[in-house]
Amino acid sequence: MGQIDSPEDLRKLEETQLYQVCTELRQFIVDNVSVYGGHFAAGLGVVELTVALHYVFNTPKDQLVWDVGHQAYGHKILTGRRDVFHTNRLYKGISGFPKRSESPYDSFGVGHSSTSISAALGMAVGSRYKQELDKQHIAVIGDGALTAGLAFEAMNHAGVSNSNLLIVLNDNCMAIDPNVGALKDYLTDITTSQTYNKLRDEAWHILGKISKFGPNAQTIASKIETALKSSLLKNSNLFESLKIRYFGPVDGHDIDHLVNIFNDLKNIPGPKILHCVTTKGKGFPLAEKDQVKWHAPGKFDKLTGEISIKHFDTPQAPKYQDVFGHTIVELAEKNPKIMGITPAMPSGSSLNIMMEKMPDRAFDVGIAEQHAVTFSGGLATQGLIPFCNIYSTFMQRAYDSVIHDVCLQNLHVVFCLDRAGVAGADGPTHHGAYDIAFMRCIPNMVVSSPMNESELRNLMYTAQLDGNGPFTIRYPRGQGVMPEWRLPFEKIEIGKGRTVKEGEEIAILTFGPIGNNAVDACNILEHEELTPAHYDMRFAKPLDEALLHKIFKKFKKIITVEDGCLMGGFGSAVLEFMADNNYSAKIVRLGIPDKIIEHGEQPQLYKECGYGTEGIVEAVRSLTSIVHQE
Amino acid sequence: MGQIDSPEDLRKLEETQLYQVCTELRQFIVDNVSVYGGHFAAGLGVVELTVALHYVFNTPKDQLVWDVGHQAYGHKILTGRRDVFHTNRLYKGISGFPKRSESPYDSFGVGHSSTSISAALGMAVGSRYKQELDKQHIAVIGDGALTAGLAFEAMNHAGVSNSNLLIVLNDNCMAIDPNVGALKDYLTDITTSQTYNKLRDEAWHILGKISKFGPNAQTIASKIETALKSSLLKNSNLFESLKIRYFGPVDGHDIDHLVNIFNDLKNIPGPKILHCVTTKGKGFPLAEKDQVKWHAPGKFDKLTGEISIKHFDTPQAPKYQDVFGHTIVELAEKNPKIMGITPAMPSGSSLNIMMEKMPDRAFDVGIAEQHAVTFSGGLATQGLIPFCNIYSTFMQRAYDSVIHDVCLQNLHVVFCLDRAGVAGADGPTHHGAYDIAFMRCIPNMVVSSPMNESELRNLMYTAQLDGNGPFTIRYPRGQGVMPEWRLPFEKIEIGKGRTVKEGEEIAILTFGPIGNNAVDACNILEHEELTPAHYDMRFAKPLDEALLHKIFKKFKKIITVEDGCLMGGFGSAVLEFMADNNYSAKIVRLGIPDKIIEHGEQPQLYKECGYGTEGIVEAVRSLTSIVHQE
Repeated sequence: MGQIDSPEDLRKLEETQLYQVCTELRQFIVDNVSVYGGHFAAGLGVVELTVALHYVFNTPKDQLVWDVGHQAYGHKILTGRRDVFHTNRLYKGISGFPKRSESPYDSFGVGHSSTSISAALGMAVGSRYKQELDKQHIAVIGDGALTAGLAFEAMNHAGVSNSNLLIVLNDNCMAIDPNVGALKDYLTDITTSQTYNKLRDEAWHILGKISKFGPNAQTIASKIETALKSSLLKNSNLFESLKIRYFGPVDGHDIDHLVNIFNDLKNIPGPKILHCVTTKGKGFPLAEKDQVKWHAPGKFDKLTGEISIKHFDTPQAPKYQDVFGHTIVELAEKNPKIMGITPAMPSGSSLNIMMEKMPDRAFDVGIAEQHAVTFSGGLATQGLIPFCNIYSTFMQRAYDSVIHDVCLQNLHVVFCLDRAGVAGADGPTHHGAYDIAFMRCIPNMVVSSPMNESELRNLMYTAQLDGNGPFTIRYPRGQGVMPEWRLPFEKIEIGKGRTVKEGEEIAILTFGPIGNNAVDACNILEHEELTPAHYDMRFAKPLDEALLHKIFKKFKKIITVEDGCLMGGFGSAVLEFMADNNYSAKIVRLGIPDKIIEHGEQPQLYKECGYGTEGIVEAVRSLTSIVHQE
Repeated sequence: MGQIDSPEDLRKLEETQLYQVCTELRQFIVDNVSVYGGHFAAGLGVVELTVALHYVFNTPKDQLVWDVGHQAYGHKILTGRRDVFHTNRLYKGISGFPKRSESPYDSFGVGHSSTSISAALGMAVGSRYKQELDKQHIAVIGDGALTAGLAFEAMNHAGVSNSNLLIVLNDNCMAIDPNVGALKDYLTDITTSQTYNKLRDEAWHILGKISKFGPNAQTIASKIETALKSSLLKNSNLFESLKIRYFGPVDGHDIDHLVNIFNDLKNIPGPKILHCVTTKGKGFPLAEKDQVKWHAPGKFDKLTGEISIKHFDTPQAPKYQDVFGHTIVELAEKNPKIMGITPAMPSGSSLNIMMEKMPDRAFDVGIAEQHAVTFSGGLATQGLIPFCNIYSTFMQRAYDSVIHDVCLQNLHVVFCLDRAGVAGADGPTHHGAYDIAFMRCIPNMVVSSPMNESELRNLMYTAQLDGNGPFTIRYPRGQGVMPEWRLPFEKIEIGKGRTVKEGEEIAILTFGPIGNNAVDACNILEHEELTPAHYDMRFAKPLDEALLHKIFKKFKKIITVEDGCLMGGFGSAVLEFMADNNYSAKIVRLGIPDKIIEHGEQPQLYKECGYGTEGIVEAVRSLTSIVHQE
């Protein structure tokens, strides 16, 4: 494999050598991820698929779209990025996902799930229009990703498009957590012993026998055959119902068979699906056994399988997601109206804690953000209080449901937006950059963010009290700041900020945990005898107008800090208040600028965007030196 | 029917009287819509369903969710709103859609399609949790609405939910325009002569015969039967694949049969679907014949079927949608890269003009906004330039696709947002209120709006030039202002506004066609010797910074006007510019305030929101009288 610098090199090999390539590719992934971290089990599961696809198809002319992209490490390694693969997911390194600007082999940028069929269909229709009739378009999509509506919408179109589209269904029964829903059961039905295919084969076999019973039987057999053909072939398969020719299921780890079948499929025009059964984590027994844990395990010992865990002498602050996970259970134990909803992120959101303790009150609805929100709306009409936990970036997919099905009806649904703000190594597709802007413009919506774990608990407590409407609580990926976080609940007045530190000349207004950077900044600035005030506003909507009046009366220099986009965000809300209330002040807004922020550790990205501790310090210093003209 | 003030009254009738109720209800709808206008054909198509559902089910305890709600006029009339029905869709009158605040029989607010299964499932799961085990939950959804991903996501969950959910599939082969896609073909297959059901029946019949051939044949027959049962019953139907029990197809206009079957279904637990075949426009022959025209025909003569058309002595300005529809064809004739995409709105967007002339370049992808955008992204990767036309309010549903599949990759897709701003009689679910805020916060996105038809043409011309990335053009529902609109194309520099009128003391900055209100306001103000300047900014992003510097240097009083939400909108962009560039001015922002704006004629709503001509006049007068403190 050390000689394969591109799929062209791969295609020079004999078929018999591919097994060896797969073995080496798998080992390369193990060697690399064990040292540098990253997504693991998904990539191992598609090693054979990756090799077979690049061997049979003429990439990059033939176009390959990897859905989500967690699984595309093998693809990256085979397409010229082997030697830079150790920079995967690092600041300024290569992306953890396929990305158009990185390679011509990455035909579409991915990160969110379920886009591949739509995108590949667009490519296929475009190619057909351009008379590039020999070009192939392949979407590789997992059974988990197939549950999202976008994938279904695309199939509904693909079925009547007569385009050169091959969907490779990578069926491993998993999203990040085990896949759920009726579709998953259906796929399992197909692949287990009483399969559709075996039934079909058996039926043909018996019909063959019947016809030997004489002319009468022949007529009958032929009638049955017509019936069977029409119903079994035309209607009997979900994909064939949608006019997509179904092939499979096949063993997705049988490289020889895959190569043969891809060669065959290349010559079958029109939309088609190949159902491949694979094992997530294939070839690394521990990962096969615990696929959730090994989705992205961090660094580990590749021989013993021991996952590196940092050890600390002092108690550490918890992750925000765990504070959510434990707190919702605590609240739900007292308030029987509380329900929990996650779209396919039980472990990522820590709602799995509630799902285990209260299985009738906590639901994983699959990768289906729109449904998660509208379903929550339905629950709310029954007087229940759903906590719908969706990563900020994925909430983009449920935006209309938030507006149309919850806010317009002023239903009491609590939206917990995890991974809000820059998300770190996952990069631009996963940054929760826009939610403050897109949530605060919706009437009836409350938009809040806690500065620490105790505040998160108190906002959750407040949000579930009777009389509320839609209520958003956003918090970031990662650890908080309070090792002793499980303090008693206190109600927070909605729209009430708090004073972290009184001060002079400059007021720093922060929204959310990024406020801790301001605390650090103030500590540094104290040594320079600069003493800005610091207010944790807690709510981007409604704003604490009383506090703002106080601030604008006292201060003519204000810095706003948010872990979100500057356009239309929290700082803009403060500008709107200032304009509407006839104040005049110099306002410096710190947050995510209007450009795509690449991947990296959160502190690196804070710094790059100018709202890390140093950025806040700098902003205070600069503001101090200027004279506000009034 | 005059005696039916509630479903309770209906339920007192004998079954034999229901036919008469249907006739009268249908007549009431014809009488009413012909005089007052509104949605027509959809309501006629579900008269029998409406009567049967309220007759059999114990509404409002049993909960009925009408998908979209175009078809719910009969429901409204039977549930206590007969006497106010003449106020339907009028300012301060009842809503054209089901609405929770209007009636306990409206169990969920609708307007956008495809939400009903999610919402009803939420209700059903909530009821089960609350041990209300006899409660029924019914979603009535059209075959058009079923193509949207949200409906599929909900079915995937419903199938494994074991909830008391009945989906009534109102299959009339139509959305507003004819339904498209593989699913529609599938449903048609079921209902046409070679149906799944007939095949199934025939197969059973033949198997019965085979078994008479003796013991050998019996064994074989029994084997085939097992095979058939497993495959036909378990897998052979798309809905049964998703573990939803399928019943039908039945004639959705046979009131007796519907009553019987609903009575049966009431006693069958778990998720189930009843496939009803109906005719949109049923009972009004002209509507049955031209269902697109009669979707919402306006006022008409109920005897002759003549639709009222206003006649004018002078040439009238065209609708913005028609300017779009003709202009894209003109551009596409010159630029072979241009493609057109609409999610189920060919006639509403006027893309049907291109679909007729260039069928290989213009696509209706069904009610599937996410797919429409991601598919456009796929097309763009092939060097094509898709014009993706989506109503502003429906673009909310494709928000993630815009961010993740287009903007992050900086693909050249032109988004034409029709019905931007307040939408009129359709009301809050249809107002395009939020798009300026939610689009401008995305990096790489251009956000523009034309002040008139010629500007729309020039923005479209500009948007299709090579080298662009994502490009939004928003325009409102309804007529423009230029009877002679087809002027030669001129390129507009991106981010360049224009001076409508120089002036003194106050600058009015407008974005989009609402600028014409400012023109009218300036004309009125001239009589008072008030002479504000007026700038048509054209772009909310990028802002015309050169022009803004000029404006802020000259004016200390500024009014921004937009047909969009104030929070985070165009006015906020101007505030951000002011803050970032150290200007100080009194800025009054006019636009949609932070509350739900109900339905009414557009000018009524402009007035209510304060950005009608009078509102702008008032704002100038007020600003004139105050002294700006600097």
